[in-house]
Amino acid sequence: MAEVKFTSEISVEEIQHIGDDSVIVAAARVSTKGWSAVPSDESYGLIKYLMTHRHGTPFEHGSLTVRVHAPIKVWREWHRHRIEWSFNEQSGRYSQLEPLFYLPSRDRPMMKVDEWKPGRPKFLVCKDDLIYRVLCDNLKRSYSLAYEEYQKNLELGIDPGLARDCLPVGIYSACYCTANPRSIMAFLSLRTHESEAKFPSYPLWEIEIAARKLETVFTQHWPLTYKAFNECGRVAP
Amino acid sequence: MAEVKFTSEISVEEIQHIGDDSVIVAAARVSTKGWSAVPSDESYGLIKYLMTHRHGTPFEHGSLTVRVHAPIKVWREWHRHRIEWSFNEQSGRYSQLEPLFYLPSRDRPMMKVDEWKPGRPKFLVCKDDLIYRVLCDNLKRSYSLAYEEYQKNLELGIDPGLARDCLPVGIYSACYCTANPRSIMAFLSLRTHESEAKFPSYPLWEIEIAARKLETVFTQHWPLTYKAFNECGRVAP
Amino acid sequence: MAEVKFTSEISVEEIQHIGDDSVIVAAARVSTKGWSAVPSDESYGLIKYLMTHRHGTPFEHGSLTVRVHAPIKVWREWHRHRIEWSFNEQSGRYSQLEPLFYLPSRDRPMMKVDEWKPGRPKFLVCKDDLIYRVLCDNLKRSYSLAYEEYQKNLELGIDPGLARDCLPVGIYSACYCTANPRSIMAFLSLRTHESEAKFPSYPLWEIEIAARKLETVFTQHWPLTYKAFNECGRVAP
Amino acid sequence: MAEVKFTSEISVEEIQHIGDDSVIVAAARVSTKGWSAVPSDESYGLIKYLMTHRHGTPFEHGSLTVRVHAPIKVWREWHRHRIEWSFNEQSGRYSQLEPLFYLPSRDRPMMKVDEWKPGRPKFLVCKDDLIYRVLCDNLKRSYSLAYEEYQKNLELGIDPGLARDCLPVGIYSACYCTANPRSIMAFLSLRTHESEAKFPSYPLWEIEIAARKLETVFTQHWPLTYKAFNECGRVAP
Repeated sequence: MAEVKFTSEISVEEIQHIGDDSVIVAAARVSTKGWSAVPSDESYGLIKYLMTHRHGTPFEHGSLTVRVHAPIKVWREWHRHRIEWSFNEQSGRYSQLEPLFYLPSRDRPMMKVDEWKPGRPKFLVCKDDLIYRVLCDNLKRSYSLAYEEYQKNLELGIDPGLARDCLPVGIYSACYCTANPRSIMAFLSLRTHESEAKFPSYPLWEIEIAARKLETVFTQHWPLTYKAFNECGRVAP
Repeated sequence: MAEVKFTSEISVEEIQHIGDDSVIVAAARVSTKGWSAVPSDESYGLIKYLMTHRHGTPFEHGSLTVRVHAPIKVWREWHRHRIEWSFNEQSGRYSQLEPLFYLPSRDRPMMKVDEWKPGRPKFLVCKDDLIYRVLCDNLKRSYSLAYEEYQKNLELGIDPGLARDCLPVGIYSACYCTANPRSIMAFLSLRTHESEAKFPSYPLWEIEIAARKLETVFTQHWPLTYKAFNECGRVAP
Repeated sequence: MAEVKFTSEISVEEIQHIGDDSVIVAAARVSTKGWSAVPSDESYGLIKYLMTHRHGTPFEHGSLTVRVHAPIKVWREWHRHRIEWSFNEQSGRYSQLEPLFYLPSRDRPMMKVDEWKPGRPKFLVCKDDLIYRVLCDNLKRSYSLAYEEYQKNLELGIDPGLARDCLPVGIYSACYCTANPRSIMAFLSLRTHESEAKFPSYPLWEIEIAARKLETVFTQHWPLTYKAFNECGRVAP
Repeated sequence: MAEVKFTSEISVEEIQHIGDDSVIVAAARVSTKGWSAVPSDESYGLIKYLMTHRHGTPFEHGSLTVRVHAPIKVWREWHRHRIEWSFNEQSGRYSQLEPLFYLPSRDRPMMKVDEWKPGRPKFLVCKDDLIYRVLCDNLKRSYSLAYEEYQKNLELGIDPGLARDCLPVGIYSACYCTANPRSIMAFLSLRTHESEAKFPSYPLWEIEIAARKLETVFTQHWPLTYKAFNECGRVAP
């Protein structure tokens, strides 16, 4: 039987990108300059103006593809982003999923602190080592049995798309994700928490880990756009 | 501890619908009749013409909302339909998921018959009662332990969005789904298997169950559109 | 030769609608109540909460279809709304366009008052009757000649899709438009000007006329959603 | 007064592109190879398989941006492509449009040959020099007067967004367009005519000119995808 592995890592790795702040500027300038608008220079003033007034379309003329490794529960949320997001994910029907499962790191805020409050959940870091250990043991025990039963099902010759029904949402899956700067900003605004954001969001911890890594890639290629995004309260244009 | 339940049922129930074949006809007639085009009659000839020539936009002026109960593995596929599909699903972050899990019915084709062939998996009904029983036992055992650990995690006061990481993709989740006739046909063409279809698809058994129930609702409200869809090889216009 | 007609009217007429505030509430409640969430009551508190926190998806489970008569220049902007908007418009390739042209009403703000300021154009009502009359005469003269040449081209036996190249963007065209409450609000936020809006927009006068008529239909069917939209600064959720 | 110019040219010029056949292959392989799938080689067999079976999503992980100069009537059609197409077009509200107008070239099929047949218009090249000359004269006369009135309106100090209402759909406008390979193929399948296509389309001549130039750019960067597209009857996957 394959050895079950556990990790807290969520990986986001760039595959390719095109377009930069100068292309966004050029696309915006078509509005007034017509055919003669070509990418040449950057203009933070114009980018900030577009962002402030929510003229979003110029931010669509670029593309970033990343390869991401994350638990299924993260994909369950990420794949809900329909607009200008493209996905190709690992299949549980066509291949055997690897025994890699998610465990929270020690600093993952996880203790409920207030009454059930839909939409704005708040959690504290667990101060009690025992609780953390028990949680991890519970997860490991369940993960391990699930993978064991999964393998048994496969050995029976069962359709992998059925044999996997016992696999948990904590199992890892890989996905190619492609989006443009505008759709990336929409994702970041919803999947990161910033108290100073105009519309603060309360994302799932694990998708925020992925979003922060995507944000790091994004800021490298579109630094002015990213700066304006932050100065405008992280509202996607 | 809550009692774990198992089922093979996948439910699709209509909430509301608007538009019928006569609205599709009227929308198409705007093209040549302009402002005077209003829904009045149906015309199978025109609908068939639109379908044959893939003039798809007239099929967008309607809407169907259904409430669906299905295992998470079905949602994993259904939510990949981005175009003109709207979803609101039960949340594992804001509520405790109920202990309802999917078991295959006896007649679900599940035995692998050929070598691993991505894209066109083929399975046979299991003739061996023992294999079926072992599969179900494996799933039940894993489901039961997963739910037990889930409850223990919740009792520790853990974030429900983390406590649920051990829950399997065979657990049920409810979702509101809204789509128009065109996007419903795109879904049906991919999520049902018809040997005589122009582009035969090889969907997951469980999503086909849901798709067939949706198809039944669809044909009631758009009978001419549905007829043309079938006559044109189930290619979405 | 057909007689050329002029008008300042822009018409928006309801064809059909489905869904109301109670369906939005039910769709949102699936999140916590799962399968048992069905449309039953309305809850302004919940709708306001969804709007404030930009939980937009529940506002997608409804549909409104309108028939609109407007100058082509309005369609040029309206058709840029890609997300969850469906259109079927009159065709200049398959039919002869009618000689109906747009003239501004007397109270249409039209005089430039400041230096060229892209993005935030501001205009004043024309106080000088002569200017208004000259403008209308200019438009009428050009409209009339264009339609005359168009007819001559058609009489030569020319492809209507080419014969019409001289027709101006002030000519009327009819269109069926279908959208859900969320996409309607996105449209209203961009195509109406409200000084107290969180992100004030500076739309073209003529599309605002259409948008205001659409807004009137919208508020009838989704009064609580509309109220929350306004109270939240007309930011589409 | 500005001098009016006429042209039959429609320009499509590449601004940027990313992704090639090897990225499509890698995105498809995530399905079975998971995290280890990276762009390395091309495989015509796999691309052809994806195309044949309409597995469309792998074709979304690329991007092409072009700058296009075309008459407004072309934009009226192009902008109806909503899915994964991004546009920024010249504005008649924020700038004065240039006096450049479309005239058909001598070889543009333009003579109606059959009764009015919506959906499948067919035209022949004009054999009569006189007819062609009269058509061009008609258009020129109308174009010239329209631009003259437009300039007079602007000189009155009228809102450019109103002053332009007399401008014809034959006037040129520039636009940035960005799309991925999948959405480009959907565009090509609808906006070009190939008699051997599985679903032959009957596009407007002028948008086909643009589509053919886009096709030339596309085939340079995605030669295997383009080959498979053609071999599969030009059905977008």
